[in-house]
Amino acid sequence: MAIDRAIDPFVPWGVAAPEAEGPRLAVKDVFDVEGLPTGAGHPGRLGEPAERDAEAVARLRAMSVFAGKTHTDELAWSLGGINQHYGAVENPAAPGHVCGGSSSGSAAAVAGGLADIGLGTDTAGSVRVPASYCGLYGFRPTHSRVPQTGMVPLAPSYDVPGLLTRDLPLLEWAVDALLDPAPEPKTPERVWVPADLWSELSPRVGAALAPAIRRLGLPIDRTSFGLDVTDAFAVTQAAEVWECHGDWVRAERPEFGPGVAARFERAERLTSEEVSLAAKNVAEARLRLLELLDGAVMALPSAPGVAPVIGRPSRMRAATLRLTCLAPIAGAPVLSLPVTLLDSCPLGLSLMAAPGGDMSLFALASGV
Amino acid sequence: MAIDRAIDPFVPWGVAAPEAEGPRLAVKDVFDVEGLPTGAGHPGRLGEPAERDAEAVARLRAMSVFAGKTHTDELAWSLGGINQHYGAVENPAAPGHVCGGSSSGSAAAVAGGLADIGLGTDTAGSVRVPASYCGLYGFRPTHSRVPQTGMVPLAPSYDVPGLLTRDLPLLEWAVDALLDPAPEPKTPERVWVPADLWSELSPRVGAALAPAIRRLGLPIDRTSFGLDVTDAFAVTQAAEVWECHGDWVRAERPEFGPGVAARFERAERLTSEEVSLAAKNVAEARLRLLELLDGAVMALPSAPGVAPVIGRPSRMRAATLRLTCLAPIAGAPVLSLPVTLLDSCPLGLSLMAAPGGDMSLFALASGV
Repeated sequence: MAIDRAIDPFVPWGVAAPEAEGPRLAVKDVFDVEGLPTGAGHPGRLGEPAERDAEAVARLRAMSVFAGKTHTDELAWSLGGINQHYGAVENPAAPGHVCGGSSSGSAAAVAGGLADIGLGTDTAGSVRVPASYCGLYGFRPTHSRVPQTGMVPLAPSYDVPGLLTRDLPLLEWAVDALLDPAPEPKTPERVWVPADLWSELSPRVGAALAPAIRRLGLPIDRTSFGLDVTDAFAVTQAAEVWECHGDWVRAERPEFGPGVAARFERAERLTSEEVSLAAKNVAEARLRLLELLDGAVMALPSAPGVAPVIGRPSRMRAATLRLTCLAPIAGAPVLSLPVTLLDSCPLGLSLMAAPGGDMSLFALASGV
Repeated sequence: MAIDRAIDPFVPWGVAAPEAEGPRLAVKDVFDVEGLPTGAGHPGRLGEPAERDAEAVARLRAMSVFAGKTHTDELAWSLGGINQHYGAVENPAAPGHVCGGSSSGSAAAVAGGLADIGLGTDTAGSVRVPASYCGLYGFRPTHSRVPQTGMVPLAPSYDVPGLLTRDLPLLEWAVDALLDPAPEPKTPERVWVPADLWSELSPRVGAALAPAIRRLGLPIDRTSFGLDVTDAFAVTQAAEVWECHGDWVRAERPEFGPGVAARFERAERLTSEEVSLAAKNVAEARLRLLELLDGAVMALPSAPGVAPVIGRPSRMRAATLRLTCLAPIAGAPVLSLPVTLLDSCPLGLSLMAAPGGDMSLFALASGV
């Protein structure tokens, strides 16, 4: 068990020596990069060199210099930042703590100054959680605004590429290079702070993030979200994961870390009825989110607390998913801002817009 | 070569004997049905019985009775309705002609009265073309309004389940059961008839469909689409197909019919640069479509002509894709209406709304 071993952000099979000038790009090892194998966080998946760059990689390479491929949780199906096979990537912004996952290596490379742009993926928080833990700006785009070509799938209905940087203008530049153009929905005119979701969190988290919300300068809407959709989300996600990886798991019975193993076991056992009921609940939640996001930006913590210490078990997954599942359910864009510290560790604020409102988030954030 | 052999709509491994009352459901053999194998139109893909119903199947079974699984083109990557391995499904509405594909068996089952609801998939026209050729109502929903769980992927950014029926009220009922709820965009107030796309078609097609467009009773906007995005679409589609099926093709080198074989060969050879450029062109086309669909419904033929004769080579693929690629590019819903005959064969009119405007199409169609 190597899970407490602190490791370099880059995977050994994906280190580059950038020679040209320009922002350095660290690429999560779930994206294809021409000439390098894609490992997806599991030794059983490390295969032949890729023939083509993933579309997200190709778009970013046009404005940056490739610096290497980075560690990820197994198949990106974890928020922990700890990989059973390779180790835990240490958090440069909070030494001794994890980076969070699954885009752990990209976050660590950027937070540690080894790269300027970190390319990750975010199915259920895998960019926003490491951004929060590592004191970075993090961006999850509207679903389907970047082709998924060349990206190892986890749950395609929710999967998106995402970005991490140390400063906001570079993030906006990179997001603009990454996204397909789209018509923008109406500009947010209020900030939705769902009373029920905030009331479940530590009051210290609320107090730490409140000033940043006030700096948005928008009227505050405290309507409760009113639904508990976290497990329904997890079921629909697991069903899609099984679609993508079930054949391999059944054929090879690969070894997984305990959390991922438990999730695969559940995925294998799901019945049609469970998945259908969960999909119905997720669809209802999506409709409610789209209604409440109409003309609004939602504010939530990017994670329910700061980065756990490496080697100490964390029990934050359910509480984290409760917050982070809403963006994939709505297909909505989120900008995570490194606005504060708690117990000397970074904590981020997430702003979520209606689908298509990606760039509007940068205008809002400039005031925070 | 069995491609001229006329075959039954149902696959031999998926025949059911519906005993309960209710509309009979024919399911394209790219969807999982619990207890039956999924063949996806290629003998090399026919595997073990599925453990769970696909989500689309589960939703429709709640309001219908499963009648069997139906033939499809190889991996659904053709509009021809001719399968190299199994044969050609004959068109009940135009004997001696193909049904069109790739949802050929579902269309034939419904047109021939063996089922009432045909479940198909539509990546680039695979529901709309058979609907047009077989004189059926056909529906392609907004992308991502039905979870893709349990559906063999072709190009997931474009793939959607779709439906075929002989009458409109049943189609509306089934669509309502199939789709996630979503906020509707503004009601269409004009009909967009792209002058350039119509001018490329036979004048007889325009003359045959014009009365139905007039019956919509909306002001007509003849703005040209102005872009030629068909090949860029085909490139991005092929890149995604290779993502989904490339490993299998490389490992097994399966036998394909000539059209599918040529498309796989091209998919294997695509470079990062070609795919990136194509994705950029597709993104620009999407933006233009979304702008022009704002407050409008677009009217196009569902296919550029009627069903070809079985055994006589058809050269309509490029002209068909030119029309049918616009909905997958925009992620937009389309309702195909069986409005006329040409040379004694059916021809359909497609109405496309802005994404999310699925149900608005039924209100419009009731006047046609």
